[in-house]
Amino acid sequence: MQLGLSVSDSDVSSFTPLVVLELADDTKAEAITWLLNRIRDKQKNGGAELLVDQLLFPAQDGQKSNPNVFVVGSTLQRLLKGAEDVGLFKEFQDGIMRGFTYANRESFKDFYDGEGFLSDAECQYIIKHELDTLRAKNEEHVPGYPKVKLYPGKSVVRRLQSKGVLVQYFPLHNKEDLKRLSFSWYKKIKLSFQPLDDIRHYFGEGLALYFGFLEYFTFALVPMALIGIPYYLFDWEDYDKYVLFAVFNLVWSTVFLEVWKRCSATFAYGWGTLSRKKAFEEPRAGFHGALGFNPITGREEPVYPSSKRQLRIYLVSVPFVLLCLYLSFYVMMVYFDMENWAISVYNENPNFGTGILLFVPSIIYAVVIEIMNLLYRYAAEFLTNWGEPEILLFSCSSFNNSYFNYCFFFFFCFQFNFVNCFASLFYIAFVMQDMVLLRQSLATLLITSQILNQVMEAFLPYWLQRRRNKKVHKRMRRVMGDKELPLLEQVQLETEMNTYLGTFDDYLEQFLLFGYVSLFSCVYPLAAVLVVLNNITEVYSDAFKMCHVFKRPFSEPAANIGVWQLAFETMSIIAVVTNCALIGLSSQVKAYFPESETQMILIVVAIEHVLLAFKFILAFVIPDVPKDIQVKLAKLEFDSLEALKKRLCTYNISKVSKDFLFQRNSDFK
Amino acid sequence: MQLGLSVSDSDVSSFTPLVVLELADDTKAEAITWLLNRIRDKQKNGGAELLVDQLLFPAQDGQKSNPNVFVVGSTLQRLLKGAEDVGLFKEFQDGIMRGFTYANRESFKDFYDGEGFLSDAECQYIIKHELDTLRAKNEEHVPGYPKVKLYPGKSVVRRLQSKGVLVQYFPLHNKEDLKRLSFSWYKKIKLSFQPLDDIRHYFGEGLALYFGFLEYFTFALVPMALIGIPYYLFDWEDYDKYVLFAVFNLVWSTVFLEVWKRCSATFAYGWGTLSRKKAFEEPRAGFHGALGFNPITGREEPVYPSSKRQLRIYLVSVPFVLLCLYLSFYVMMVYFDMENWAISVYNENPNFGTGILLFVPSIIYAVVIEIMNLLYRYAAEFLTNWGEPEILLFSCSSFNNSYFNYCFFFFFCFQFNFVNCFASLFYIAFVMQDMVLLRQSLATLLITSQILNQVMEAFLPYWLQRRRNKKVHKRMRRVMGDKELPLLEQVQLETEMNTYLGTFDDYLEQFLLFGYVSLFSCVYPLAAVLVVLNNITEVYSDAFKMCHVFKRPFSEPAANIGVWQLAFETMSIIAVVTNCALIGLSSQVKAYFPESETQMILIVVAIEHVLLAFKFILAFVIPDVPKDIQVKLAKLEFDSLEALKKRLCTYNISKVSKDFLFQRNSDFK
Repeated sequence: MQLGLSVSDSDVSSFTPLVVLELADDTKAEAITWLLNRIRDKQKNGGAELLVDQLLFPAQDGQKSNPNVFVVGSTLQRLLKGAEDVGLFKEFQDGIMRGFTYANRESFKDFYDGEGFLSDAECQYIIKHELDTLRAKNEEHVPGYPKVKLYPGKSVVRRLQSKGVLVQYFPLHNKEDLKRLSFSWYKKIKLSFQPLDDIRHYFGEGLALYFGFLEYFTFALVPMALIGIPYYLFDWEDYDKYVLFAVFNLVWSTVFLEVWKRCSATFAYGWGTLSRKKAFEEPRAGFHGALGFNPITGREEPVYPSSKRQLRIYLVSVPFVLLCLYLSFYVMMVYFDMENWAISVYNENPNFGTGILLFVPSIIYAVVIEIMNLLYRYAAEFLTNWGEPEILLFSCSSFNNSYFNYCFFFFFCFQFNFVNCFASLFYIAFVMQDMVLLRQSLATLLITSQILNQVMEAFLPYWLQRRRNKKVHKRMRRVMGDKELPLLEQVQLETEMNTYLGTFDDYLEQFLLFGYVSLFSCVYPLAAVLVVLNNITEVYSDAFKMCHVFKRPFSEPAANIGVWQLAFETMSIIAVVTNCALIGLSSQVKAYFPESETQMILIVVAIEHVLLAFKFILAFVIPDVPKDIQVKLAKLEFDSLEALKKRLCTYNISKVSKDFLFQRNSDFK
Repeated sequence: MQLGLSVSDSDVSSFTPLVVLELADDTKAEAITWLLNRIRDKQKNGGAELLVDQLLFPAQDGQKSNPNVFVVGSTLQRLLKGAEDVGLFKEFQDGIMRGFTYANRESFKDFYDGEGFLSDAECQYIIKHELDTLRAKNEEHVPGYPKVKLYPGKSVVRRLQSKGVLVQYFPLHNKEDLKRLSFSWYKKIKLSFQPLDDIRHYFGEGLALYFGFLEYFTFALVPMALIGIPYYLFDWEDYDKYVLFAVFNLVWSTVFLEVWKRCSATFAYGWGTLSRKKAFEEPRAGFHGALGFNPITGREEPVYPSSKRQLRIYLVSVPFVLLCLYLSFYVMMVYFDMENWAISVYNENPNFGTGILLFVPSIIYAVVIEIMNLLYRYAAEFLTNWGEPEILLFSCSSFNNSYFNYCFFFFFCFQFNFVNCFASLFYIAFVMQDMVLLRQSLATLLITSQILNQVMEAFLPYWLQRRRNKKVHKRMRRVMGDKELPLLEQVQLETEMNTYLGTFDDYLEQFLLFGYVSLFSCVYPLAAVLVVLNNITEVYSDAFKMCHVFKRPFSEPAANIGVWQLAFETMSIIAVVTNCALIGLSSQVKAYFPESETQMILIVVAIEHVLLAFKFILAFVIPDVPKDIQVKLAKLEFDSLEALKKRLCTYNISKVSKDFLFQRNSDFK
């Protein structure tokens, strides 16, 4: 039936395996045959025209491993055509990023014979795209599964996945590249920048942008950390000399984000995603549901959730969110009770033991917050998917499949995390006005959540992974003796790795850190230092977890950090308000207005308004995209419109030459 | 030499005259010959390929009229080609606005044989564009004027104009159309909307958009006016029941602008300017200076002012602006002195005479403000042009020729007018906290400035114009007897009309009215009523002045109200702050917090922050362009990129078919 890669023909596959498909081990043979035929079939017959091989694992004592594991690859020609389908942008001869076309491939920079022109991540992305857009023709159901209904245009892969026939599919690591990447990325301790282009080459633009942001954020924090240290050392007991620092915070948080936008545009332009965003994405294949007519591209593609469903979600979610917020506040109040109790114990009998006890409530609270965030995250995920059993939000590379769901989920998590993490700090700062407690609480929250995060994110999965690896190694050794079978072993190892759930959690963590720093670092100048330290280890642990802990994720094209830019900007506005309020509360400022509190408040409010106005003007004046890239984008747009004019013209006057052209094109193909 | 239209061959011109060119009456014959030849010359020889005739006026007793008046027209074919050059967008067969191409003309909706396809305003705009882009070839100077230097690429018309050889050029009214337009526009009193499409057809998009805005603003004010009347009637003596009205103001000013953006996009899409804005404008021909290389279009075009010049302007202007502001404040203080004096006189001897005296200071102040605004406007114009003798800011259709200058001038005028008009009101409201005086001052300012504006804008010019018309009529009659010579007479009449200086003043007036209404109408509910009344007369007087008082202006393509949108939005933000502050000042609110003023202020500030946040979220959530137009724009962009891909492809693989195509195209032409 199919060309199996048994042990006997070793691991020499007829092609470079790029993506692994794992079907359930009890999948009916006819379904497998049908699926493989569809994948192998020519494009003109509605197939994906890809290469696919079965991996046959050696029988193992007792445990039988899944026989239905396949590797998918592709010819170079097919990949290049796929690159045109997904609309990749590549650098043209003239230095401008242009939409790649197969016919025109020779005119792109660094094409040569095509080898190495597409990055690994791009190849895998293309294969994923082709698999996702493999649509049912006139089959009524999956062969062998009368209950797994199909209808014309339905994404085959998605239906198989939602019915549990397709267990998973993921891109394979490239051991060579991975070794090289991990060496230059995190294996040597160095002061240089991260190899962002290599990261992008291996993991795609989405992740590269995250690491770029992480690096940028860390560097941006260095000045603040440097100012924070002397502040901390010399003014520690003078709680109120933070006005200058608050002003610095204000300016910093604004400039920080504006400059990042430009950096991000520069990255994204070089990677081709900035122009591509302007082009039209293919139908988001992962999305289920009936086909509709896309009025823009004139293609049939899946329709998006109805406003009815949106309404239903809101009606259920809003009460749920309110309940969660109430819970969050309740926990906060319990924390304050604990705090009071600890203080009273300490006051009764001040010694080292009770001195430590003072920190216990904060630590417990920090841990509880982390747990609540985690639980809430799952609840939000559940709610988002609720009523839509076919959308597996985290099934593959994060949320790409539904922008609406992503935004919805985002605001869910965003507001809850925000309230959960910052409510107590705001309460301490503005209701209790207790700067000492604020400092202590902030420090404990920061340090505890950092430690917890590193453990949960990298070390725990790593440890679990290692145990699993050893088991697989041992099993394989036992069966095969000393014979080497890297591919089989690699596939088996990676199949059992955890799936990386997208950059959401990573950005969320950075967002909360940004919040701590921009909101309250003026009362606790060491915050920036702690965040810098955290982020330095974060780079290493994140890099490590991407390379060795999780399955390789599919590349996610990204032109910017998306909705997170908005989140960070919102936070920086809140930071202006908060810092002004903190300034107003400082006894340093109060001393200037000994008789009239009203006057002081009015002046602080006026200053705050001026600062906010200044912030908006600054954001308005600094262009989001650097001049040279603006020019290149504009040139592309100009060329496009000119070309459109020409084409409309060609179309109308010269039917003859059009037919001629068509003939030439097909000759060439 | 040239085909003169003498009296003997009546006014039958060989073509429809569209634009009038007036050269100085002592222009050397060789310069005239040269210019006419350049205008008539084929495009491939660098000419404008337009039709031009001399108008010969009959010799008049004593007064000799200028013999060097020319009318310019064009063949339909040339106009259609010009429409492609300027990048007009027209509705295609499929209902989408697409860039017009001559080759493809038959596929555009309503083309038929081309007659009436281009509006009058478009034809004149095209001719203006062609004249403006008539560039010097290798002439070193204008023939007959060795001192009027030229260099290759220099705009001939601009150089002649700056040296006073070309006195003016302007589009001619179309008597038939004008009669029809003015009848449907303002000659009948009616409750219907303005004929915006006809206005656009006759005057172009810029003016149509202004009248659209004026109408929209007026209608939007009606609810506020309706609420204001009972408020005024029943709460007149209860100065403090304005909290509800202030809240209404807040919501109104936000929704008002958001909805306008969508209206404006709908207008502009239908008129083809929304898509066209996305395309690239031709080099702004009017701009003087050396040619540079435009990195986007790859064409040679004039370069823009250097940052050095910008710096120089700022260095001189900032002190000047500060001085003006000081003057403005000084006048304000004098006004308060006068006010105090009037009140003391009234208190000493309260009778009808002194009761009227109470209003005199406000009226004088209002008049002084108007005068200062006018003087400042000229000063700003002078400063903007300073050091750049060749830029005639108001020479033709407003500021099109230099965006930088426009913005600069705009902010100059904007800030000064704002301070000048509103400083006293803010002072009265928040420093003096005298709501009675605020109300009186607002009413006087509004009414006085409205009366002054109507007189200055329409009636005074009309009266002057009428006197002039009568003189011309009489003169013509005397020479010609009863023979009719409409064209000659029309040209002579219009030559002497004043030039319309663009929509700047009209928008500024609406902006100030918007300010009065949104900032302070809660303390003076009749403000909205007054503004509605003003705007109804404004529509009529503006329509009248456009049709009969001023020279017909060249059409100005506009996709939105540009920088004014930003100005109105800024004002609506200021309105939120002001209204909140007014609420805080009201004794109604103060009564709720009898013991703690601080608490009251904090609550008002908190509410204000919530409102501002709400405003930004609203602006973010409401899309600027309605959904259906978004889809159409996206479709255009998608088609463009697809076409570009195809073209790059065509370009590379089939040189043969390209040559073939080229041949076909030239055959067709």
